Formats: sequence, C-alpha cells, structure tokens
Amino acid sequence: MKAAIFEHAGKMVVEDVAKPQIQAPDDVLIKVIRTCVCGSDLWSYKEGDHKQAHSMNDGHEALGIIEEVGEGITDLKVGDFVIAPFTHGCGQCAGCKDGFDGTCDNHPAPTNWGGGYQAQYIRFHYANWALIKVPGKPEDYSEEMMKSLLTLADVMATGYHAAFCARVKKGDKVVVIGDGAVGQSAVIAAKMMGASRIVLMSRHEDRQKLALESGATDIVEERGEEGIAKVREILGGPADAALECVGKQAAFEQAVGVLRSGGRLGYVGVPHEDNLNLWELFSHNIQVAGGSASVTTHVKNVLLDAVLKGEINPGRVFTQTYSLDEIDQAYKDMADRKTIKSYVIVD
Amino acid sequence: MKAAIFEHAGKMVVEDVAKPQIQAPDDVLIKVIRTCVCGSDLWSYKEGDHKQAHSMNDGHEALGIIEEVGEGITDLKVGDFVIAPFTHGCGQCAGCKDGFDGTCDNHPAPTNWGGGYQAQYIRFHYANWALIKVPGKPEDYSEEMMKSLLTLADVMATGYHAAFCARVKKGDKVVVIGDGAVGQSAVIAAKMMGASRIVLMSRHEDRQKLALESGATDIVEERGEEGIAKVREILGGPADAALECVGKQAAFEQAVGVLRSGGRLGYVGVPHEDNLNLWELFSHNIQVAGGSASVTTHVKNVLLDAVLKGEINPGRVFTQTYSLDEIDQAYKDMADRKTIKSYVIVD
Repeated sequence: MKAAIFEHAGKMVVEDVAKPQIQAPDDVLIKVIRTCVCGSDLWSYKEGDHKQAHSMNDGHEALGIIEEVGEGITDLKVGDFVIAPFTHGCGQCAGCKDGFDGTCDNHPAPTNWGGGYQAQYIRFHYANWALIKVPGKPEDYSEEMMKSLLTLADVMATGYHAAFCARVKKGDKVVVIGDGAVGQSAVIAAKMMGASRIVLMSRHEDRQKLALESGATDIVEERGEEGIAKVREILGGPADAALECVGKQAAFEQAVGVLRSGGRLGYVGVPHEDNLNLWELFSHNIQVAGGSASVTTHVKNVLLDAVLKGEINPGRVFTQTYSLDEIDQAYKDMADRKTIKSYVIVD
Repeated sequence: MKAAIFEHAGKMVVEDVAKPQIQAPDDVLIKVIRTCVCGSDLWSYKEGDHKQAHSMNDGHEALGIIEEVGEGITDLKVGDFVIAPFTHGCGQCAGCKDGFDGTCDNHPAPTNWGGGYQAQYIRFHYANWALIKVPGKPEDYSEEMMKSLLTLADVMATGYHAAFCARVKKGDKVVVIGDGAVGQSAVIAAKMMGASRIVLMSRHEDRQKLALESGATDIVEERGEEGIAKVREILGGPADAALECVGKQAAFEQAVGVLRSGGRLGYVGVPHEDNLNLWELFSHNIQVAGGSASVTTHVKNVLLDAVLKGEINPGRVFTQTYSLDEIDQAYKDMADRKTIKSYVIVD
C-alpha cells in the first residue's frame, strides 16, 4: 500500500510499504478515504523534533471503511463508515468512564495516540469502543460534510476538550490562544457552551475572519504583556477562562495572565516546554486542566450530532485539498501558513 | 502592646510595639484573644526563608473582639466576636463572587494575606466582607469549641479548599498528602464531601490516629514510588482525587502519581519548589487547582455552621496550649513535632 514517509525535516515522501494486519482481537483494519495534516505533525516537519529519519508518518486523523475486524469486535462490521480518532480509549477504566479516554489508564504505551494514518490502510487498536461509526455511506455526504466529519478525529474534539477542561459555561468571558485549526475549534466549542465573549489572539487575517464567523467576538493581535493588557481592556477586566491551543510557554503564560482569581485554563497544545510556574498559579487560584482530547467521548456525546445537524461546520479549517501523492506539499503549505489545515483525499 | 517578633531562624521573642491603628474606611481594629502557629510560619523559623531578622511575626490566624471600626464598616460593630482569616477578599470582584476570595483580584498587595496576628491587637483590612462574625460572646463557648473556631481562620478552611479545588464528590477515592493540621482538615473535608476511601500518607502515629478518627480509611507510611504503589494496591487502582497539603515537589509528584486519567489534584501547600512537569499532567489529563484558601466563602457557606453544630471538630489539631509569652516554645514544639499545632491564649 502507499503511505507517507517522514524522510527528514522538510521532506515527506510517498512509498510502498507492507499493508498492516490485524494483531489483536480488538483490532480492525481500515481502508482510509480521507486524512489530513495536524499542527503537531509539523513539529517534526519544521524542526526534526527527534523524529527518526525515513520513518512512518505521524498522521493520526482519518475517515475510512472497515476492511476487516478482529475476533473480539462486537459493535462494528466490515463496510462500516468510521471516524478513526487519534486516541484509543478502552472505554472500561475509571478514566474513560469519567470522560478522559484520551489518556486511558489501560493503554500499554506511554500515550494512546495512533500514527501512520496518512496511508491507504491502518490498523486501529481498541477499536470496539474507540472507533466512531458514522451513519450511512461516504457517498451520502457532501465533501463539506466529509471535512467536518474528519475534524472529529482530532482538531474539533481537541478544541472542544480545551473548553471542556476549562469548564466553560454560559456567560463566561473566554480567551482563545492559538488561531490554527484547534484554536478555531475551541472558538466553536466556547460558543456551543454559551460564552458571552470570545477573544481570539491572532495576527492572521484569514484566521481572524474564520473565527469571527464561528463566534469569536473580538480579536487581539498583540502578544505577551501587551496582549494581556489589551484583552483586559477589551473585557473590562480579566477573563473567566482561557483555552491554550499552542503548546508553548509563551502561550501558557499569556493564558495565565488574562485570567481572574479562580480562572480556568484548559490546555490542549502538546507541551513542548515543560515547566509551569506553580507560584503564579497558586497566587491566583488558577485552575489548570488539559491533555489528550477525549475524542470518542466528546464525539459520541456531542460533536457528531452537532456536525450531522449542521449546527457546527468545523470542516472550514480545511482550506486546501491534496492527494496522498501530494503529501509533501500538504505539509509545506500548512507550515508556510498558506492553508489553515491540509485535507488529503486518499484513493 | 505585646507582639511576637521573629528574631532570627529558631528564635521568636515577645516585645512591646506600637498598637496598630485604623488606616482606611474598611479597616477594623481587633483585640486578639486566641492565636496560633501555622505550618507556614515554620518555614522561616526552621530555615530563615529570606525573612528579615527582628521583624513582625507571620502569624495569620486569630479570634478576637472588635475594638474599633473604620467609617466604611456597615456590617460589624465594636464588641463583635470575630474570626480573623489570613485572607482579605473584597467580596465584590469576579474572583470573590465565584468563591475564590483567597486571591481576590482587587487586592493591592502581591498576596492578600495578613500577618502579625500573634499579638494583642491587629488591624484587619477589607474587614466588612472578609471578617467572619461568630454568634454570641467568647464566654458562651467551651475551650474545645474556641479551638475549632480558630481553625476556621486558616487550616480547616485550607484543608477544605484542597478538597473544594479537587471537586471531591460522593464515592471518590481520595489520597491526602500531608498529615499536619491542614492535611488533617483535608481528611475532614473529604469525608464531608462523601469520599468512599480516604488514604492518608503519614509516618506519625499520633497523626495517623487523629486522621482515622476523623474519617481516614487507610494509612500509607511509604513515600515516593513505594508510596504510590502502596496506594494503588490498597485502592485496587488509581485514585480519583489527591489533596496536596505540603508544598514540596515530592508531595506534588506523589499526588500526581496516585491519580487516574482525569484525576483531580487540589493543592494548598504554599509552593516552595516552583516547577510542575506539564507533560506528566498532560499525558494523564490530571486536573490541577489550588491556591490560597477561600476562607471567608467556605466558612460562611459551610464550615462555621458545621463547627457550631458539632458536626466537625477540627480544633483537635491543637494538641498543646501556650501563652503569648511562651511563643518561642510554641514554635519550637511544633517544629519538633511535639504538637500537631500550637494554640496560643492571648491576654
């Protein structure tokens, strides 16, 4: 089968590799029909980020058709149209049952993330609970709807997770840090939860426009201390919640800086700088929660329904479309901010 | 008036100093009748901790009688019996209104903590909202009840804050780290909130006994990785919530280590080592919340009533009594773990 291979920083290629196989009773094999590039895939593309040269891609978002099921699979069958999340919750541990399947306690690996989804086929483990069945067939849906469904594999669920972790509630003044696909999704989620003000920190006109159409009420272009002061000026005081969708220290500090005493910080950017100043949090009772998104929980409980009913249109973050053979361009354009998120059609 | 003075690490003295005076409309002057020593006072007593030699004591817990009121005071009068919290919430900002008055947004200083309460008189600012009136007169209460009332100035409210921040709920498996007065209070709070299991990490028999009488179900003496393994063994898996009542890195790591995916960590130990490993939190969706306790909120909403009805008896943490003149001994015995918390009667 064809799969995208990380050749080295700045270079993705497509190669023929062995088709994956069922390995465990709870596995399924999926024929991928749509995949995409994630902001987190770009860490290695842009900087290497310790990723081994000539290794399988980090892609972890896909729509597909079930090709084969393991013997333990009871709730899915060959031919089902599914969303393949980047997470693999077991659905049975206390964490999954409490809605935190993105970091399932029963998962053997350091994270329960998938990889290698930029390919014609993937093996998906913990499939019975974690995979999400979509009603009908792919051909029942418009390409616009397919895009929105694909965001449910990661970015829309991840943006929602930021708002979920920050426990955004009706009337909250919310600040979103990060204007990429996850930040855009966090804006949508904050609106779903009834925020009265949604301030997006953004310097890019196309992203500002998209967010304003999705429910953002204000844009702040300034960063750091200036950005914090501007947010407080616009809101007439500090914010109730901040959604950190970047994963960098500066973004985190900005999030802390805009919050009131007892403010809630939801973070979903994969942390690339590890340290939190605990004193700063303590001295303002800042509540911090975040991690890998509870994709299966959020999608099954809320998001699939909202997408199918057309209440939200998160697929608009896909502003360019590519074939799998064009994967390097899909990465490059996203790294160069020529597209918010790259959508890939797989034959 | 007489006041305790921090002479240098290991030495408190009592000296005559100027009686404080009303400085602002929202001030009151309080004649102190009971005070005590806090675990946080011991940081400087044991190690210096950057505190200036020959300076006013850090005491911040008192019961007293209002001696004089500022012109802006509407809800209190001379002669009222009051609990003087260590915090000074304004009661009007978004933080205070949301129940986080321990880090009031309107407070001018870096923290809103009081100090100097180990003295015959104190000036208390933001008094109108933050001070807590106790019904009747001191002579209406037994000394045991006076002790429980005094814990509401800090430790009982602080232990409760840990459980409040960790959002402990009915049926939760809770681990308490720290067996001092705050840890003991956290055990009481976890029980009030309906925890099904309360594991206290403790190596001291007197403290273990007190906690078991207050609602702890299990004791773990081991620390670090061994302690984490023991907790998981006792609970048959990870905990839902952990209450960190120490303020040291090792305690924090232990708290993180016992939690499940999506577990909730409430921390109230004043952070003395500043860094949190964000990746560790992210990869388990650990929710972290804490800070200076919402003393006025918790006491007015829940704790004063629970103490007056005899439902909780947090005053049992005071295992030795001293006069103000014996303040050095009161510090020394607590530093040497000869008493859990030192109770001071002021004439």
